[in-house]
Amino acid sequence: MCGVFGIENNENAAVMAFAGLITLQHRGEESAGISANGDGTTYNTYRSMGLVAHIFKERILNILSGKVAIGHVRYSTHSESTIINAQPFVYNCIHGTIAVAHNGNITNFEQIKNRLAKSGSIFNHTSDTEIVAHLLAENTGKTFGQIMKKAVQCLQGAFSLVLIQGNKLIGARDSFGFRPLVLGKVGKSYVLSSETSAIYAVGGNFIRDVKPGEIIVIEKGKIIESLQLAQKEKEKLCIFEQVYFSRPDSILRDRSIRDARVEMGKYLARQMKHIKADIVVPVPDTGIFSAKGFSMHSGIVMQTGFIRNHYVGRSFIKPSQKMREITAKLKLFPIRDVINGKRIVLIDDSLVRGTTAQKIVITLRNAGAKEIHFALSSPAVISPCFYGIDTPNKSKLIAAVKSVEEIREFLNVDTLTFLDINNMKKACGNGDVNHFCSACFDGKYPSPIDRKKLLA
Amino acid sequence: MCGVFGIENNENAAVMAFAGLITLQHRGEESAGISANGDGTTYNTYRSMGLVAHIFKERILNILSGKVAIGHVRYSTHSESTIINAQPFVYNCIHGTIAVAHNGNITNFEQIKNRLAKSGSIFNHTSDTEIVAHLLAENTGKTFGQIMKKAVQCLQGAFSLVLIQGNKLIGARDSFGFRPLVLGKVGKSYVLSSETSAIYAVGGNFIRDVKPGEIIVIEKGKIIESLQLAQKEKEKLCIFEQVYFSRPDSILRDRSIRDARVEMGKYLARQMKHIKADIVVPVPDTGIFSAKGFSMHSGIVMQTGFIRNHYVGRSFIKPSQKMREITAKLKLFPIRDVINGKRIVLIDDSLVRGTTAQKIVITLRNAGAKEIHFALSSPAVISPCFYGIDTPNKSKLIAAVKSVEEIREFLNVDTLTFLDINNMKKACGNGDVNHFCSACFDGKYPSPIDRKKLLA
Amino acid sequence: MCGVFGIENNENAAVMAFAGLITLQHRGEESAGISANGDGTTYNTYRSMGLVAHIFKERILNILSGKVAIGHVRYSTHSESTIINAQPFVYNCIHGTIAVAHNGNITNFEQIKNRLAKSGSIFNHTSDTEIVAHLLAENTGKTFGQIMKKAVQCLQGAFSLVLIQGNKLIGARDSFGFRPLVLGKVGKSYVLSSETSAIYAVGGNFIRDVKPGEIIVIEKGKIIESLQLAQKEKEKLCIFEQVYFSRPDSILRDRSIRDARVEMGKYLARQMKHIKADIVVPVPDTGIFSAKGFSMHSGIVMQTGFIRNHYVGRSFIKPSQKMREITAKLKLFPIRDVINGKRIVLIDDSLVRGTTAQKIVITLRNAGAKEIHFALSSPAVISPCFYGIDTPNKSKLIAAVKSVEEIREFLNVDTLTFLDINNMKKACGNGDVNHFCSACFDGKYPSPIDRKKLLA
Amino acid sequence: MCGVFGIENNENAAVMAFAGLITLQHRGEESAGISANGDGTTYNTYRSMGLVAHIFKERILNILSGKVAIGHVRYSTHSESTIINAQPFVYNCIHGTIAVAHNGNITNFEQIKNRLAKSGSIFNHTSDTEIVAHLLAENTGKTFGQIMKKAVQCLQGAFSLVLIQGNKLIGARDSFGFRPLVLGKVGKSYVLSSETSAIYAVGGNFIRDVKPGEIIVIEKGKIIESLQLAQKEKEKLCIFEQVYFSRPDSILRDRSIRDARVEMGKYLARQMKHIKADIVVPVPDTGIFSAKGFSMHSGIVMQTGFIRNHYVGRSFIKPSQKMREITAKLKLFPIRDVINGKRIVLIDDSLVRGTTAQKIVITLRNAGAKEIHFALSSPAVISPCFYGIDTPNKSKLIAAVKSVEEIREFLNVDTLTFLDINNMKKACGNGDVNHFCSACFDGKYPSPIDRKKLLA
Repeated sequence: MCGVFGIENNENAAVMAFAGLITLQHRGEESAGISANGDGTTYNTYRSMGLVAHIFKERILNILSGKVAIGHVRYSTHSESTIINAQPFVYNCIHGTIAVAHNGNITNFEQIKNRLAKSGSIFNHTSDTEIVAHLLAENTGKTFGQIMKKAVQCLQGAFSLVLIQGNKLIGARDSFGFRPLVLGKVGKSYVLSSETSAIYAVGGNFIRDVKPGEIIVIEKGKIIESLQLAQKEKEKLCIFEQVYFSRPDSILRDRSIRDARVEMGKYLARQMKHIKADIVVPVPDTGIFSAKGFSMHSGIVMQTGFIRNHYVGRSFIKPSQKMREITAKLKLFPIRDVINGKRIVLIDDSLVRGTTAQKIVITLRNAGAKEIHFALSSPAVISPCFYGIDTPNKSKLIAAVKSVEEIREFLNVDTLTFLDINNMKKACGNGDVNHFCSACFDGKYPSPIDRKKLLA
Repeated sequence: MCGVFGIENNENAAVMAFAGLITLQHRGEESAGISANGDGTTYNTYRSMGLVAHIFKERILNILSGKVAIGHVRYSTHSESTIINAQPFVYNCIHGTIAVAHNGNITNFEQIKNRLAKSGSIFNHTSDTEIVAHLLAENTGKTFGQIMKKAVQCLQGAFSLVLIQGNKLIGARDSFGFRPLVLGKVGKSYVLSSETSAIYAVGGNFIRDVKPGEIIVIEKGKIIESLQLAQKEKEKLCIFEQVYFSRPDSILRDRSIRDARVEMGKYLARQMKHIKADIVVPVPDTGIFSAKGFSMHSGIVMQTGFIRNHYVGRSFIKPSQKMREITAKLKLFPIRDVINGKRIVLIDDSLVRGTTAQKIVITLRNAGAKEIHFALSSPAVISPCFYGIDTPNKSKLIAAVKSVEEIREFLNVDTLTFLDINNMKKACGNGDVNHFCSACFDGKYPSPIDRKKLLA
Repeated sequence: MCGVFGIENNENAAVMAFAGLITLQHRGEESAGISANGDGTTYNTYRSMGLVAHIFKERILNILSGKVAIGHVRYSTHSESTIINAQPFVYNCIHGTIAVAHNGNITNFEQIKNRLAKSGSIFNHTSDTEIVAHLLAENTGKTFGQIMKKAVQCLQGAFSLVLIQGNKLIGARDSFGFRPLVLGKVGKSYVLSSETSAIYAVGGNFIRDVKPGEIIVIEKGKIIESLQLAQKEKEKLCIFEQVYFSRPDSILRDRSIRDARVEMGKYLARQMKHIKADIVVPVPDTGIFSAKGFSMHSGIVMQTGFIRNHYVGRSFIKPSQKMREITAKLKLFPIRDVINGKRIVLIDDSLVRGTTAQKIVITLRNAGAKEIHFALSSPAVISPCFYGIDTPNKSKLIAAVKSVEEIREFLNVDTLTFLDINNMKKACGNGDVNHFCSACFDGKYPSPIDRKKLLA
Repeated sequence: MCGVFGIENNENAAVMAFAGLITLQHRGEESAGISANGDGTTYNTYRSMGLVAHIFKERILNILSGKVAIGHVRYSTHSESTIINAQPFVYNCIHGTIAVAHNGNITNFEQIKNRLAKSGSIFNHTSDTEIVAHLLAENTGKTFGQIMKKAVQCLQGAFSLVLIQGNKLIGARDSFGFRPLVLGKVGKSYVLSSETSAIYAVGGNFIRDVKPGEIIVIEKGKIIESLQLAQKEKEKLCIFEQVYFSRPDSILRDRSIRDARVEMGKYLARQMKHIKADIVVPVPDTGIFSAKGFSMHSGIVMQTGFIRNHYVGRSFIKPSQKMREITAKLKLFPIRDVINGKRIVLIDDSLVRGTTAQKIVITLRNAGAKEIHFALSSPAVISPCFYGIDTPNKSKLIAAVKSVEEIREFLNVDTLTFLDINNMKKACGNGDVNHFCSACFDGKYPSPIDRKKLLA
């Protein structure tokens, strides 16, 4: 769960990266960083824990001079969530100075790290991103694109990378294309971004996806190299991007996230046509478009049933259990006269642990909900993700340990409906339903996974 | 534009005040403060610039011990927005130590201040709230309620006050009841709040409004005094509370804000029945319920046309013009495929300067909007507020200097519709349309106003 | 224990005040503040907890524009040492805006406060300085000097005040002249300061003491008024200034602090001529000049026996008991090969509680000191100060509750010698020994003291 | 210019390191860090810009749990003085996790870095310390001591290293022993430190110097290995440690720094016996003991001529030129009545650029000094240091570009005397004068130096 952004050939590269990162902030609220380079040698880098808008005050942006910049927002999946792991990382090596930012999760990280350690490498971070720098440093080639290709060839798992080397902005995506990476242009500057929304945010236009397995090297407003990783594999874009992770105004594989979600809602309505209800209520903000689709198809009116207090941020308060409980209640607040006495179709995007949903149901019951028909715009999450989404291990996935009926009882809802996996794929796929990774919903991992981790 | 909150007879008074203030945060994002007292003499007070959740970390709340607490959030209407004016204020005087927090604007402040200065008073703040403390200090009486009554009798304008004196929690509201103040109860503790939402936020129940002109004194879970200011005037609740200021889940004079806004939207739809449009798009977040009402009455489907980026807060970034422009664009982002090619009814709550609306229209035009029919769920703002809402002086109110047709041209919209003032009052009033102050819309000020200020 | 500084008619008034306050920092390390005014109405003020050099970064100084500035450093004598009491205070009143900074302690503070409270005054601070503003506000006069005279006439105890009113810089000193206040000039600007050292620090020249009971009003480089408080009393300058408080490069009543201390040491040597010792070791830094004097007269060589670690500041670390003990040991470190096997004359300035001296003796014993002859360059402190020095109440003054022999045993020293009170006065007085307040050494208070406080 | 400290087998390892670092703070005021390890795998590390006492608040120390800890204070010799280069560094490699802190300067750093880069290494820092980690990682051996020996064998220049590996505390010193490193013991814990003073500061006893070329490995209170680097070279301890750098209460090669400085002063007095003067005035704080020695031998009385304001720290204020000038003047303040009319022997430790000395002379002249005989307790600095002392390159060394007479004129002193190099060595050496590196004074570098750098 990270976001990356890069821009080149731009006088305001760091400010553009700042705007891009604010737009990608939902992809990681824990730390953020920007590295900029202009003259090919001096890299100006600033990383900190916290939100983009808090970190990058104007005086900071002013010192991040340089015409090429990359940025990163991060939500740690590990406990070691400290400043030392905030990206971009900047390294010196035989190829000069290189800055790198990474979205994804490299599944053969340990093996490569062990191999590198045996040959005398040292590791400054606990992050898997550092081995990308090691692999770059130990490979050679005629062009940086070729070096890059050799370096990432051995990586398994998910990676969408942006790098700076000298005046070059480089993008790379694993062969499955697990994590998104898109190319845009603003004026004479190319832009790389995790989502199209950030390209538009800086006033640019979306050009195309960086292809699965593509390595793209840009310099001074020109794409100077585009290489393809040797083994061409079937694209497997993470379907959780559509379900939850991406902004609704982003576009993935020519399909708007918003449209995909509206259609998920319509499919849900079809699955639930026997349900009698008075209103459809989305859990804000991710349930809104599915609820809209549900309402459109079912004819049941959609109502705003909750006020979300945006002043209660997770990054603002990291307190004791008592404080956490107090502030959690303040975040989502029911509108009593909407809820009271109603039969409600409650729509959320996905069910992972079930604990948040349980609290929302209690809130609705206390506000007088007569019936609650809980609908998820995705199937039950039954398997952990190894490609960069922060899902817990199996024992904590409620749908991995409980039956649907048991979950319904646990949540205390009248009915519980998961979106059928084929419906989900049809909604997201624009016809083609095979290019998605849906391992978290069906356990079918496109690439080899360490069985020990799977069973952990 | 402030919010006040008070609670008494409660072991966790400061934490409850914190929860209340987070719920009232929309009423003032500039500074916040809490003062707590338990033993009748030592007041523990903390005030700071910034957001409630940023200021009141757990270690701060832990030192704010005491069973009575009041809190305040503030948006300054003056340039002197510094920590010195953050409330609550705490004073020693002949009546012991008193903490006071104020929502409103006292219109005869200068006269009283001059009178006090001539008799030898000194002033530590530039705020009008300080004179309340002076007036309390120079009056005597058998009970604190009586002292309070004498003190505030001479005040003109708007005030909703909460105070602590010893173990007592005191509330007071001007005779017109310009600004709201409500009474609730949670367990054995009475609560005073600017809005009902904050009472529910702490798990309490709404009891009743503090009446216009009422002074209420509470001690150890009992209402020990309720006095009425001598001259009983017609209630004149600020109708801008319903239009924009209050949270939609709050209730004012037995009328839910949400219902009032939905009905405003219905009235708007009636006014605009001749308009042909494809979709209704609210400006988030205040236009949502009016848009819902418009859609319900007109049958035109409501769509989410904007993504609001909640990471872009006004309190986060206070930068140069350049930075302000960059971040302003990031705040509200159009969803292209919703907007493109559509005839749009755009709904916002009110039109003050017109500059923000102008930018939103440009955004919609750039996203491909075919027609824009701009509807405001309030009449044109033509006169400044002297009772605590931060409206600019007349020369900056677009509707005070331009005709509707001129505004329509300025905004570059196809049609422009303001909600009829009577429709607004009917929507807000539950039948009774005379108890509102609507001076900003019609220039009829319930209390005397300095003409020089009016013409400034 | 405070320091005050003022300068007028100067383009860099705040920077000059900053330089002055750094030079006076030893007089109060807890909080510091500067208030500047140029145009007669707008006062730019900044106060904070901490050290002058930490607080007044250049960006802060830059906003403190104005040609008249006063500054204050403070060491609280009360537990209420919070930012609210940091000076200068700035008030509005009938005379316009006034900034005030105060060194001293007003002994009839409670009586005056009660009188003011009864007549309806409110109090924002717990400090006695606030009543000066109240008294100014309730008095009138043809000139500000006359108002000032009326205001301070009723004050008992110690005060050295600097104020700004409009373009005027005002200084005032109580009739006894308990606390110092000197007048200097740099270029066309007059300077007021607690010590001459701060006048020299800003490149100025010392002119004269502000006389006991004098009120001096300066405007645009001219002394426009000099008034004398009605009752002319015998000057009683606090002799603790010479003993401990003032910088050695300051001059008080035409007598250099350094010379006074050297002579104290000579008198001590006379008193201890029977003592056989190898070396004289001062407790740094205040014992150094007395030790020098002792060595000069006795012929016993003076040695640096301790390294003082200036990185261990009291304001840096405010921790648990454990941390305090660790860092206390790091502050003063014995040089073993100086101490080991030696008969030592240990010289410190004064003995208050005896706890620090006890630790120093242990340190010396551990470093191998053979004999320790402890000499204090002042008599035993037997009575608390009510004029602004932070001495504890009687029960904690070791010499108030123990005999000299008991103290010697408590400290575990071979001999213990206090400087004879007459010798101290002779050393400080340049012949005239009657113009000192030595109440802390002899209990003779020049002005009436509340007996309850004395016996507390 | 750095200081290192290590302790093992201690429940309060981080607190002890904190106390040690405060005592070594004079060796580097720019950044500080502590890394602690207890269980052999998790290293708790905190590094920051600033002073030890500012950085390591109690809450920080509490999270630095572990029974082995090393610490580092640093004064950067490069412009890249940022947090990224604050030590200790912590790395993972084939030998597990290793923390390393370094005092010194590795002269063949570039060659080794180039060799490593060619073989695929990446570099996270600009510091030469990082290559120590690389060399450790690429070597193997039966014990960590053997690995360490292989790793540092190829290093040229100066290094005194402390490391943690698992439960082991390791110390290493280059074959010349340029920089000091001493071994002590407190209870059951061994201590390594740049200076003996820090051993005493934590309550320990000095045992012995770590020998030049020695690698010492300590685990659980036992020295488990002591290896000697192959080529045994003549010890060449940096004589600048005695002249200026070390604390006077430290002991180097069985010689107290204080005694060495006193004797330097005596030798100076012999060299200057023809000079007639009234007083000897040291530049505080480093000139004090030499001045004492001068006074003892010459019979000319030593006087404290300056007040040093310890509140003016270089780390506190990093401002514009104007602010720097203002605060520079505040740091050292002349005592007029000591200076005025006197013939003064002014004693400082060394002369590098001459700019500070020039200002001090102006100060003394302004304070009325009649004659100034300037004496340095070291020879003229004519060559840069490549072993870790921050001297500028030749063109900025005043004695490299001017004759003694030219310097005397530049400084505007009556006479100028440098301590004879042999006298300096005799004073420092306890008889043996050959074990010192005095390259900065005589240009004789014990190890090969890059001629380009020498001529830079």
